Amino acid sequence: MTIPHVVIIGGGFAGITCARRLKAAKVRVTLFDSRNHHLFQPLLYQVATAALSAPDIAAPIRNLLAKQKNATVLARAVDHVDLPNKRVVFDGGEVHYDQLVLAAGAVNFYYGHPEWEAWAPGLKTIDDAFEIRRRVLGAFEEAELEADPELRKEVLTFAVVGGGATGVELAGALAEIATRTMRKQFQHFDPEDARIVLIEGGSRLLNGFPDELGLAAKARLTKLGVEVRLDSRVEKIDRDGVHLVGGSLVLARTCLWGAGITASPLGKTLGVTLDRGGRVPTDDHLHPVADATTPTTYSDVFVCGDMAAVSPKCNDGKPIPGVAPADIQMGKYAADQIVARLKGKPTEPYRYFDKGQLATIGRASAVAALGKWKFHGRFAWLLWVVVHILYLASFRNRVVVLFEWAWAWFSWSRPGRIILERGKRWPPPADAATAPPAEASEPPTATP
Amino acid sequence: MTIPHVVIIGGGFAGITCARRLKAAKVRVTLFDSRNHHLFQPLLYQVATAALSAPDIAAPIRNLLAKQKNATVLARAVDHVDLPNKRVVFDGGEVHYDQLVLAAGAVNFYYGHPEWEAWAPGLKTIDDAFEIRRRVLGAFEEAELEADPELRKEVLTFAVVGGGATGVELAGALAEIATRTMRKQFQHFDPEDARIVLIEGGSRLLNGFPDELGLAAKARLTKLGVEVRLDSRVEKIDRDGVHLVGGSLVLARTCLWGAGITASPLGKTLGVTLDRGGRVPTDDHLHPVADATTPTTYSDVFVCGDMAAVSPKCNDGKPIPGVAPADIQMGKYAADQIVARLKGKPTEPYRYFDKGQLATIGRASAVAALGKWKFHGRFAWLLWVVVHILYLASFRNRVVVLFEWAWAWFSWSRPGRIILERGKRWPPPADAATAPPAEASEPPTATP
Repeated sequence: MTIPHVVIIGGGFAGITCARRLKAAKVRVTLFDSRNHHLFQPLLYQVATAALSAPDIAAPIRNLLAKQKNATVLARAVDHVDLPNKRVVFDGGEVHYDQLVLAAGAVNFYYGHPEWEAWAPGLKTIDDAFEIRRRVLGAFEEAELEADPELRKEVLTFAVVGGGATGVELAGALAEIATRTMRKQFQHFDPEDARIVLIEGGSRLLNGFPDELGLAAKARLTKLGVEVRLDSRVEKIDRDGVHLVGGSLVLARTCLWGAGITASPLGKTLGVTLDRGGRVPTDDHLHPVADATTPTTYSDVFVCGDMAAVSPKCNDGKPIPGVAPADIQMGKYAADQIVARLKGKPTEPYRYFDKGQLATIGRASAVAALGKWKFHGRFAWLLWVVVHILYLASFRNRVVVLFEWAWAWFSWSRPGRIILERGKRWPPPADAATAPPAEASEPPTATP
Repeated sequence: MTIPHVVIIGGGFAGITCARRLKAAKVRVTLFDSRNHHLFQPLLYQVATAALSAPDIAAPIRNLLAKQKNATVLARAVDHVDLPNKRVVFDGGEVHYDQLVLAAGAVNFYYGHPEWEAWAPGLKTIDDAFEIRRRVLGAFEEAELEADPELRKEVLTFAVVGGGATGVELAGALAEIATRTMRKQFQHFDPEDARIVLIEGGSRLLNGFPDELGLAAKARLTKLGVEVRLDSRVEKIDRDGVHLVGGSLVLARTCLWGAGITASPLGKTLGVTLDRGGRVPTDDHLHPVADATTPTTYSDVFVCGDMAAVSPKCNDGKPIPGVAPADIQMGKYAADQIVARLKGKPTEPYRYFDKGQLATIGRASAVAALGKWKFHGRFAWLLWVVVHILYLASFRNRVVVLFEWAWAWFSWSRPGRIILERGKRWPPPADAATAPPAEASEPPTATP
């Protein structure tokens, strides 16, 4: 009897959880990810705002699976999946699978305007975070040299697009940087003059959280000095800043994007009908659903995390939020189903268990929605700290992050204030004499 | 009476030391550095080999001088220095100085072959370190996918050019990565099969250290599995690896450069005759020396650190080694002379005080030359640890680095095993529609 081959695409929360849960199973596991590290995305905004350094929140996938003899890690981008023939084709070869777990995550999405990305980077990868860090810290350096007060104002204006958790957390961190971290570090201007504008198209912040927490977040951000602009839809983002529908312009040298993601482009290669967010619709077993274009049900395929538009049946008719606990649950579920099927046991539908939602707003403040409990302020923040430390992938990271946070708490400083260069020599060494130019501001490519 | 203006170019050991030492002086200090951080260069190889993360060994210059009211930090590259008119011209303006401290350091040097750089990156900046890290870790990932044993051998060969401290430390760290860090992390090959070749043009390692320590380093590296090739001069570096004079070729996918640096190109703008290493010859007061092209002695200019070819008179007729203690001493000296002159006190010539030299060779081993004492092994390594912790610029860094080292010691792991992308979106947002390609593999530009 040959050992069944489980292929997992993506080393995020769902993929890693699934792979680890298969440790004792009689399967061969192959995990693909074009990046070599698992990323703890909920804390990525802290790398972008220089509160943490990258290795604090990233762990080599190979390390996470080092003690697992049945797992192979391939650091390769998957090109496409051939569902009918059960093949995964990647840059450099192809593999056959018996069971497939699709967990390639999501990428930034600019609603048909990929040209905005150059002006307003999103926050999905460590490189994104470094780019944001470079721009934010660079703006303050620029201001020290700008003699014209009008231009300095523009240089010191930061526009954050999107009032979800990412936007709220970025705006809060920017406010803290301006009022605290940078205090007394410049001779020619007061960093507190920095203007932070949070732009949201809808009528409230933190959509998906209870109404009252959206209000609490708005109040807290306003207190921190952030200008919150609701019902403000973006017309265009360019050199000048963010142009809003209706004609007004937020003149800002630095714009950040937290307004949208779309599922990994890998979904497009499956030949199934995707939803508006580019996600693969699934049944209550996380299998891709049969439709006109895909009459077959692929019961050997599980779609997890941000790539999946999970059947509302799995959450009492409601959509499942894009939070880490949901991804982890799906990864566990897929692993358990794979094991059950190997043992000939009956499979069970997936049920989402709501562990609640948390978001921080600057120092010592957060909002929390845990089932019926809704609260905000200092206690919510403590809860946020505890939860994030517990979820961090390895013991080491927990200790380091705790240390960094404790240090930052008492010193008000941010250790990661290092501006990297603009990747002058980053293009790979193709041919030294004719090294190709780096692809400039192209939309994010397929991940993993 | 106007307050004298001291301009310092460069935020390395010499520049930062000088600026800090002028804290209580009745001067205005302006420090230029195109990078926003001071870098603890002696530990940079640990970032390159994933043992430390970048913020552990870098501190924002602005932070280091935050409490110093008389200092302004400008994050700008200096274009040129106009000695006769006492002006510093930078990207965005110019300033007049009363006293100038030139401490812009050095850049990688390829002996007239800048095209080698694309194949063999050097190690002077954090971006250099990230690039080396990407290539080294990437090679192991590549090997996991390479089916052809001959090609895999090539992929797993690492050539380090230069048998000085940088080359020895890199080679030792690579050996540790292959035999320890990567152990049991791959399914298709044994990381211990990696071949590490250290190439040195001279007849010994660690030139500048006593002979016996060069021998000890060679013995230790050989024991770690490193192939040490002495008397091997480089003819060419290209896609295939390192071609040696005489015709032999070290077939290696990854080459690293530790064989040469040259003083900052800023020296060329001074209009004085430079030495072979691009350095500014100085008298025993660190002033640029008068020669045929510069009949004037510029007694208001101090040249420090790697930019200076200091008069041998300052070290009993011997040249001064390019080590951090020398840079720090010169920075202090310049500050003290500036203060003395303000007070109308007589100035004194600079005297180099030899604090010795240290280099590590993999885990728990180092060589040390402290005046008459020469020793190697575990005790030298402990000394190395203590000295480097003490010298780290801020208390925070000391604690973190100690922690990281202690952790690595017991776990044999390397926390920084994060491969960054190739800077797809790094070019600055010029115009989104026509974003320029990143400059590909151009030689390092003038720093700061």
